[in-house]
Order: sequence, then structure tokens, then C-alpha cells
Amino acid sequence: MLTRDVMRSTVREFERYYNPKVGNAIRLDTNTNVFGSNPAAIEFLKRGIDGLDGYPNTYSDGLRSALADLYNLETENFVVGNGSDEMLDVCFKTFTEWKDTSTIPVPSYVLYNYFIAMNGGTTNFVDLTEDFQLDVDTMLKNKSKIILVSSPNNPTGNSFRQKDIEEILSRFNGIVIVDEAYAEYSDKSMAKRVNEFDNLIVLRTFSKVYAMAAMRVGYAISNLNIAGMMNCVKIPYSLNKLSEGAAIAAVKDQEFIRRSVNMVKEQRLYLSNDLKKLGFIPYPSDANFIMAKAPIDHTVLVNGLKKKNIIIRDFGDKRRTENCIRVTVGTREINKILLEKIAEVIEGC
Amino acid sequence: MLTRDVMRSTVREFERYYNPKVGNAIRLDTNTNVFGSNPAAIEFLKRGIDGLDGYPNTYSDGLRSALADLYNLETENFVVGNGSDEMLDVCFKTFTEWKDTSTIPVPSYVLYNYFIAMNGGTTNFVDLTEDFQLDVDTMLKNKSKIILVSSPNNPTGNSFRQKDIEEILSRFNGIVIVDEAYAEYSDKSMAKRVNEFDNLIVLRTFSKVYAMAAMRVGYAISNLNIAGMMNCVKIPYSLNKLSEGAAIAAVKDQEFIRRSVNMVKEQRLYLSNDLKKLGFIPYPSDANFIMAKAPIDHTVLVNGLKKKNIIIRDFGDKRRTENCIRVTVGTREINKILLEKIAEVIEGC
Repeated sequence: MLTRDVMRSTVREFERYYNPKVGNAIRLDTNTNVFGSNPAAIEFLKRGIDGLDGYPNTYSDGLRSALADLYNLETENFVVGNGSDEMLDVCFKTFTEWKDTSTIPVPSYVLYNYFIAMNGGTTNFVDLTEDFQLDVDTMLKNKSKIILVSSPNNPTGNSFRQKDIEEILSRFNGIVIVDEAYAEYSDKSMAKRVNEFDNLIVLRTFSKVYAMAAMRVGYAISNLNIAGMMNCVKIPYSLNKLSEGAAIAAVKDQEFIRRSVNMVKEQRLYLSNDLKKLGFIPYPSDANFIMAKAPIDHTVLVNGLKKKNIIIRDFGDKRRTENCIRVTVGTREINKILLEKIAEVIEGC
Repeated sequence: MLTRDVMRSTVREFERYYNPKVGNAIRLDTNTNVFGSNPAAIEFLKRGIDGLDGYPNTYSDGLRSALADLYNLETENFVVGNGSDEMLDVCFKTFTEWKDTSTIPVPSYVLYNYFIAMNGGTTNFVDLTEDFQLDVDTMLKNKSKIILVSSPNNPTGNSFRQKDIEEILSRFNGIVIVDEAYAEYSDKSMAKRVNEFDNLIVLRTFSKVYAMAAMRVGYAISNLNIAGMMNCVKIPYSLNKLSEGAAIAAVKDQEFIRRSVNMVKEQRLYLSNDLKKLGFIPYPSDANFIMAKAPIDHTVLVNGLKKKNIIIRDFGDKRRTENCIRVTVGTREINKILLEKIAEVIEGC
């Protein structure tokens, strides 16, 4: 039997990803849209599907064109693929050599390091400041090829200061990726400014406010030069035809997006206050989730909620987020259930 | 503006892939199923879709289980993803270091070299023998990490001898990938034998006989050890939920597959004979396409057919397939139209 020595040296320690058995629990662990399926996507799928036998458009020109209209940019500013995960993969394949270093903040999205290692790279981890902002000087100190940040940041929830991102863009020679998976919930975005910079790639997804995580659609926005390079490296027709069609329909229904964002902006204030009353220390959020330091042991809390059929995400064992949990902002009804169940778990301690 | 020097050294020459403007032409260039959409997949999609907001199952356990039943293997023998293209990518990411050499035959599928380079590797091209079989000794001479062959081979159409593949598997220390995209049309497959070998990965697709190219579903079959390594490296939930559901339905409808295969086996004999009558030299095919040396200049033929609304694939400029074209085997009606149009183009010369 072949041992793990046969594997690429940078992936030998990889294990399988988060795959909880959930049954019909209330999932407040994945930060998807609690309103349920995107209605325009559902309508598109109901209108009837044919032509499953032929390949999709090689570069998803239809969706890229719809996105160009939405952002008032050009089709060729976009690279579209199978979730923003594929876009991350394409970035590292396009712009890094073997063992090149890429810089990411701590704490940040758990899969960033995985994408770097998967593509033969090395990760330079730089702690965020005490208030979870970018430590610009330290991030620029080490020689690296790519700087990758998410804003709003996952799992902390805050956006980074625009001036810090601009400073990195101007002082850094390499590629700067800003993952804006949750940007619809904030009022900050670099998406429409990609033509101002040589080296900016913005990532966006249909998995969060668009309520289409099941369909795996993500995209990158950059200047024509950088987007052109990425389109040459991405796998042809990696976005399936149904997901592309559904995404085009969803882009054209901005009312659903506004309604979803408004609900979250309202409810995250209430939820944050109610968590405080239960003894949590919630951090300010620009996203559809809240990270909070728990008033009891994080494991007891997360497991206790799981027994009551609510799943939240546990970050309590990780450095910088000690005893913290992350919870998706639900509707008023969902949040009420969550808060009741949390109170029960705390009382039972 | 950043130059292409910013790109990974092995991908700097990459250009965009084949993306013809086709309108409503008859496409005999992609070797998909000419019967049209997979009926079980269509039925599945018609039954109504919900839950677009949540993520798909992380490792597509439902489809892996259905495949395990089909092949009489275990769920963990399978790795499932976004087309067999993703599976190729995962193989190189999992089992190669930077600049590692991988060996592929010539002629072979055009994208193999692209996947190797995309992942930082170097390609060792080894010519097939005069009758398009594997030159086993030469393939094993150079030190390489992966040997990748397609059987039936694209674009030549023939299967490789089982004993040659077995010899490579036993004499070679690295990983052997057998891409069986067209294996349903032949009577040879290594798929059920993966547990016999330490180092065999078989790739399969839903894009050809399953008539689901639009949905991007592919999978790898290997022993539990190798498949386990690959599942740790593949991107989590890379297969979207609709494609997974449709593929499960399609696997359970083997009658459509049998009907499709029987049609192709019957029609490829007729088509081959009729091409001979028009002066072509067709090569023996175990697939749903035929490669043939054209009786007139290949460019004149391919462009002439395009004007008559039929698209076939041109391999005439490549070494070993000089003046050859590749055409998908159609139904009797489609083949009749094709042959008439070919005759017209030849007469017009």
C-alpha cells in the first residue's frame, strides 16, 4: 500500500473538511441566507430545463455579461466559476510558483491556508490588531506573492478600513485578493474600483446573500489584464449551465438582495444586544453573522445547542478567538428560538 | 500594467480554450450523446427543486453511494467532482511536486498537457505506436510521477490493450490514471478492478453517454487508500446539489445508457463504411466518434461543413493526425445529413 509520501509535500497533513451530520437542525453555522432559496433562481429552474447533453458556455459569457451590467463594468472584468473556492484556486495557480509565500491575516477564513498549501505554497500568517484590523506594516514586511484578506472578515465580522486596503494595494508589488463574500451586508466594497489598480482581485459569491450555496457560483472581478490571465488558466466551462442560468436570473432580481440585507442589518443589532444580555461579548459585525465570546465554556454551549437542534460554529479552541462562537443572524423568529435555547443551556450548566 | 511575468512560469503561454460560435449548428465536435438530455436527469429536475440556499453534501455521499451500487464497490472507492476535469486537477495536486514529470501519449486529449502545466509540472510526450497502441517500454523509460492515458483514446478512438495497461501498472512505481470517458462504448474497462492495484485511478464522466455535459459531473475510482488521499485534497462540496441529484437519477436509469450504446455501436459501423465510400480512411473506433483521414484538405472540409451548419473537429494540423478530422457518431438521420453535406463539400472542391 502506498503511504502518504506519495502525496505532494504541502498537502500530506490534509484531512477532510467540516462535514457535520445535521439532520433537520436549524443551521446557524454556514452564514447562508435564512430566507431560503433565491426566488428568481427557483423560477428559472421551474421554467423548464433542456439541453443537458451539451457543454455550457466555455467562459460563462451570459453570467459575465449580466454581472457587467450590475457593476457597470465590462464582461472581460469578470472570471466566473464553480464557487469562489474555484476562484481562489485559480488565483494561486495563476500567480504563484512553488513554495511562494502568501500572506493572510489571523483570524481569517479557515480554507485560505488550505488553498495556498494545495497549490504548493507557504503561508505567512499575520495577526490582526487588537480591534481585528489589518496590521499593514507587518503584512508588508515579509516578501510574499499574494496578500489575501476577507472584508467583512470571517469569522470576526468586521470590515477592514478602506484606507488600509488602499495602502496595501499601493505599497505591495504582488496581487491583493479581497474576498468580499459578505460585502452586500456592509456598505464598503472595492468591486467597482478594480480598474483603478494594477493588482486588485475582488472575489464574490452567490452562496451567501444570493441564497444559492447549493449551486456553487462565484466570481472574481479585476482589471482586464489580470482577469484575462485568470481566464486563460481557469478550467474551461467549470460553471454548469443550470447554475449559470439561475445566477443570471438572480442577478436581475436585486429586490430580493435588498430585502435580505435590510433584514440582517436590522436583526443583527437586536441579536447583538440580546446576546449581551445573556452575558456574551459580541464583536461589531458588518456581515450576516456575529462572533461573540461566550459566557460559559464554548464546547458546552455548542454541544448543548446541538442537542436542542441548533448548529452554530465553534471557534473557541483557536488563538485570538478563545471561547468564541460564530452564529448566523436569523430572522426575528429564528433568533428568538436561538436565544431561548442558549438561555436553557446556560441555566443547565 | 503587470506583464505575464507575474504568472506561474508553467502557465505563461496559456491561451483561451476552444469556444466556437455555434448558433444552432449540428454539433458533431464534442462527442456528447446525440439522443439529447438524459431523461432521468430531466425527470429529477422537473420534480421540483428546493434548498438552494444550503451547501451541498461536502463529499457528494449520495452520488458516491449510488456509484458504489452500480460498480459493486464501496462509497469510499469514489471521488466525485465538477467534471472529470476537476478530477484530473485533483490528481496532479495530490500526487505531484513542482516540475515533476508526467507521461502522456501522442496523440491524446488536448487538455492533459494543460492540467499538468497548470499544476507546475512537465510533460513527457511519448508517441503511440503505428497502430495507435501504447509504447510501453518508452513510456516507462523516463522517470515520471504519473502516467495518464485515455482508453478509448481521444482523438484516435481505439482502446488500448488491457495487457499493456496491466504491464504499466505493475512495472511503474507512480500513479497510473486511465481516463475512461468513453468506456461505456467499448467492452473494456479497468473500473471494477481498482482494488487489485496499488496505483490505479480510473476517471469517468457524465458528459458523454450520460448526456449531462451541461451539468459537469465526473468521478474518480481507486482503491480506498488513494481515493482517501484525493478526497482530502479536493475542494469541499465542489459538486453542486442539482447536478448531484440529477446524476443519482441518471445512474439508476441504465436502460438509457444501454439504448445509447447500442445505437452508437450499430451506427459507427455504417458511418465508417460510408466515410470509406467517400474516400476517407477511418480508424477503428471503440468510442462514439470516428477519426478519419480526409480525402480533401482538412481545412476546406471543416470550413465547408461549418458553412452548411455542421461542426466537426479538426486535427489535421497536428503531428500523427495529419489531415484527420474527428466526428461524433450520430443517429442514422444525423449521419445521413453529415454524409450528404460532406459529399457536397468534396464535389465543390
